[in-house]
Amino acid sequence: MAETQGGGQAARSAEAITPRAKDYGQWYLDVVRTAQLAEHSAVRGCMVIRPHGYAIWEKMQAELDRRFKETGHQNAYFPLFIPLSLLAKEEKHAAGFAKECAVVTHHRLKSINGVVAVDPDSALDEPLVIRPTSETIIWEQFKGWIQSYRDLPLLINQWANIVRWEMRTRLFLRTAEFLWQEGHTAHATEKEALEETWRMLDVYAEFAENVLAVPVVRGRKTPGERFAGALETLCIEGLMQDGKALQMGTSHYLGQNFAKSADVQFLNAEGKLDHVYATSWGVSTRLVGALIMSHSDDNGLVLPPALAPIQVVVVPIFKTEDEKARTIEEGRKVSAELKAQGVAVKFDDRDGVTPGAKYYEWEGKGVPLRVEIGPKDLEKGSLCLVRRFLLEAPGETDVQRRKRSKSFLPRASALASIKPTLAAMQAELLTRAKALREKRSRVIDTLADFERFYKEEGGGFAWVHWAGGVAEEDEMAKRFETTIRCIPLLEEIPEGARGEGKCILTGGPSAQRVLMAKAY
Amino acid sequence: MAETQGGGQAARSAEAITPRAKDYGQWYLDVVRTAQLAEHSAVRGCMVIRPHGYAIWEKMQAELDRRFKETGHQNAYFPLFIPLSLLAKEEKHAAGFAKECAVVTHHRLKSINGVVAVDPDSALDEPLVIRPTSETIIWEQFKGWIQSYRDLPLLINQWANIVRWEMRTRLFLRTAEFLWQEGHTAHATEKEALEETWRMLDVYAEFAENVLAVPVVRGRKTPGERFAGALETLCIEGLMQDGKALQMGTSHYLGQNFAKSADVQFLNAEGKLDHVYATSWGVSTRLVGALIMSHSDDNGLVLPPALAPIQVVVVPIFKTEDEKARTIEEGRKVSAELKAQGVAVKFDDRDGVTPGAKYYEWEGKGVPLRVEIGPKDLEKGSLCLVRRFLLEAPGETDVQRRKRSKSFLPRASALASIKPTLAAMQAELLTRAKALREKRSRVIDTLADFERFYKEEGGGFAWVHWAGGVAEEDEMAKRFETTIRCIPLLEEIPEGARGEGKCILTGGPSAQRVLMAKAY
Repeated sequence: MAETQGGGQAARSAEAITPRAKDYGQWYLDVVRTAQLAEHSAVRGCMVIRPHGYAIWEKMQAELDRRFKETGHQNAYFPLFIPLSLLAKEEKHAAGFAKECAVVTHHRLKSINGVVAVDPDSALDEPLVIRPTSETIIWEQFKGWIQSYRDLPLLINQWANIVRWEMRTRLFLRTAEFLWQEGHTAHATEKEALEETWRMLDVYAEFAENVLAVPVVRGRKTPGERFAGALETLCIEGLMQDGKALQMGTSHYLGQNFAKSADVQFLNAEGKLDHVYATSWGVSTRLVGALIMSHSDDNGLVLPPALAPIQVVVVPIFKTEDEKARTIEEGRKVSAELKAQGVAVKFDDRDGVTPGAKYYEWEGKGVPLRVEIGPKDLEKGSLCLVRRFLLEAPGETDVQRRKRSKSFLPRASALASIKPTLAAMQAELLTRAKALREKRSRVIDTLADFERFYKEEGGGFAWVHWAGGVAEEDEMAKRFETTIRCIPLLEEIPEGARGEGKCILTGGPSAQRVLMAKAY
Repeated sequence: MAETQGGGQAARSAEAITPRAKDYGQWYLDVVRTAQLAEHSAVRGCMVIRPHGYAIWEKMQAELDRRFKETGHQNAYFPLFIPLSLLAKEEKHAAGFAKECAVVTHHRLKSINGVVAVDPDSALDEPLVIRPTSETIIWEQFKGWIQSYRDLPLLINQWANIVRWEMRTRLFLRTAEFLWQEGHTAHATEKEALEETWRMLDVYAEFAENVLAVPVVRGRKTPGERFAGALETLCIEGLMQDGKALQMGTSHYLGQNFAKSADVQFLNAEGKLDHVYATSWGVSTRLVGALIMSHSDDNGLVLPPALAPIQVVVVPIFKTEDEKARTIEEGRKVSAELKAQGVAVKFDDRDGVTPGAKYYEWEGKGVPLRVEIGPKDLEKGSLCLVRRFLLEAPGETDVQRRKRSKSFLPRASALASIKPTLAAMQAELLTRAKALREKRSRVIDTLADFERFYKEEGGGFAWVHWAGGVAEEDEMAKRFETTIRCIPLLEEIPEGARGEGKCILTGGPSAQRVLMAKAY
């Protein structure tokens, strides 16, 4: 693919990455640029997802889609537009999204005095809102699909683009348009709907840990943080390298709210009419941001092998024409053998680009493993394997770690070791992310300790008792920039801290600790 | 999945399908409804793609996406919105799409006198057009991606939703919003760009024939039918069962038009600056309409096995509880064995639905093969296989064909025959579609014969000599409702009709025949 081959591209990407310690925000942007994941577009607030970033999203989609189908869901597609009156039907829902709705009001252009402009005669009878989420339009359709309990559960998912007008945007994390999936399900009973809400949260949590290699805390949002129109919002929360929390997915129990506003009733097994119970759940391209901020380093992107569009890059090293012919021949063979193993391999035999420049480029793009093939390797019948990252050893310098990341192995052993090494790296990334989270998590019992924690550490997870309401949550946000990320499942709370206690702010009784943090 | 299990659903779908011979338009709608492929939404002109329809589209996507990647393309994602001034940059392009553009003018709602309305204070400085196609926004981005010949070719594809405001809509064939892919490529020379334009047309043609089982004619559009802004538009044209042509895909050579309007220059190998050469190409959910109209019959949808979300349905037949237990056990085993073969199988063990109702439902949804398992089959160690369609035998009645579509085979032979039978059915569908096209194609040399052909046959492909211009094309459209579908590749013209001749309308000299037809 030309885009990754160009001298021009490579040169522009080679601008240095700002170290995390110096400027975390700039580091993030530099990694996104260096790895060619995304960039700003000509439209304010909208990003362009470049091929390398999109390939990662496609891998996420494939992994998620398989899990959705295994749990009985089917994909469908609903309109981009929601008539204003339809969005307004569920009041709380409409109020929640009103401030960020892009609205289509006209359907034609014309040339006015030689300038292309909106044709004023093409005003729509009713404005159309670009979906900020699809509950209202989907439930309007469900009305025709559900008559009796035999039609339930109805388990639908949609992959789509969404628009929420945002003033302050950040690539992947917050953009006016983004890509996501939204599950929408209908059930005969509250019990079944709640089970679905938790089931899909668990699917997200399992995906986050086993595919993204990002450990997450599962829990419930406080009433003030709920999705507009939901009775309960569940979420998974990850901790980024700068100590800020990132909400990575949500699953909502909607009760009968949308069924009532769209009047979706069904005949239950006893022959009585009842409104159905609903859930909705979603994750978005924001997960690419989570991925970057969880694992990447000052050399660029670090990818879990399960999501790497290229898992292994093979680079021939040569000076003479003869060496070139021989290393390229061996490189082709090695690549073919790895491909036959099911490894996503790239053979980088570009002319006119030094091996060093290639290493730099593929490291920046997060390729987990590199195979170097030089004339000496050919003589010895060996290959040189280089890992993109290693778990840190205590007291080790960067130079020492660089050295340890290289291994010279006999050809056959090298090839046999690739898949186990990729699997090990996937596991190590999760181990490393868990260790980081552990290091930046505290069980805190006093407001003084809380204040000190965020003053000294800048960020992190605080496990605190809580008995406040919305006003008290606002106070914490104002004083410390912290919010309640969730009321976690008991099993998520550190052992030994799972009992009752007193609210860190009000002193009131608290049944269990909540998770507080500064957040994106 | 509950949607296909409901008594309610089945009952509603069981409304009779209007025969093609009686009312082709209604037949099409009835097939779409019976097979639960799509339906109208609450938004004028926008459809909802239901799970069975979306599953077919997903299979098309997978087949196309693989072909795009094999030919070196990478996916990316660009914004839904195009600033009005950007769309207006390429004049012809803007003029071509002006009449069908949905335009976003505001970005907020508010409650005015208790009614949710567009906030008049939220007017955008510049209106945003919802992409009717993405050349302008993509080329704006390419500017930053291309500096030298080393960055070329740049081979990008996007899967996206598109909006073209349509007044008269028809499910899948013409809707205001639709799903599609759009390829956008940049090349150093005209030659390479033209090669790409033809290469992707061939990819579409191969996909149409081998996956959709729809034979197509490849050719060039006349100047009046070109994509707005293109120097050349290539297309594939299929013939539907009612004798109307359907444009199934287009591939455009854009010359340097978009590179010039977005000012995308590159340094060529000689060190000189030049504007790059562009192509774009796309197919859409319209292909689902092509699929329906090519193969389906008065019993509902007929699917090529390569696109069938369910290739085989297994139905147990029983009266007593003992028979139920035994046939269901065998059904599970048979399903598992087929799944292990890589066949997409559905085991329909629903209670309370008669076997007849199940047959009817799965036939309507186009499942290619049915396996029936009754008590007698268990005794004999056999299985009953029923094909959804067969090539017609001359003089055969419907009852005779129904009978011939059933075969009773020993269990092991039956299971071994499934994959070869599916492959045979795929080939037979193409054979049947080719025969239909053959039957409805004529080499015509006089206007009188032309008029008689469309009067007597209603529709079909006419191979005629042509030397007219836009005015003459308009005349043909007015008199006969026919248009030039394409100026075909020579090899597409029937043998013996490939030479020069005289225009059917003007009598002027013609180098080769063109393809005329009534069209969707």
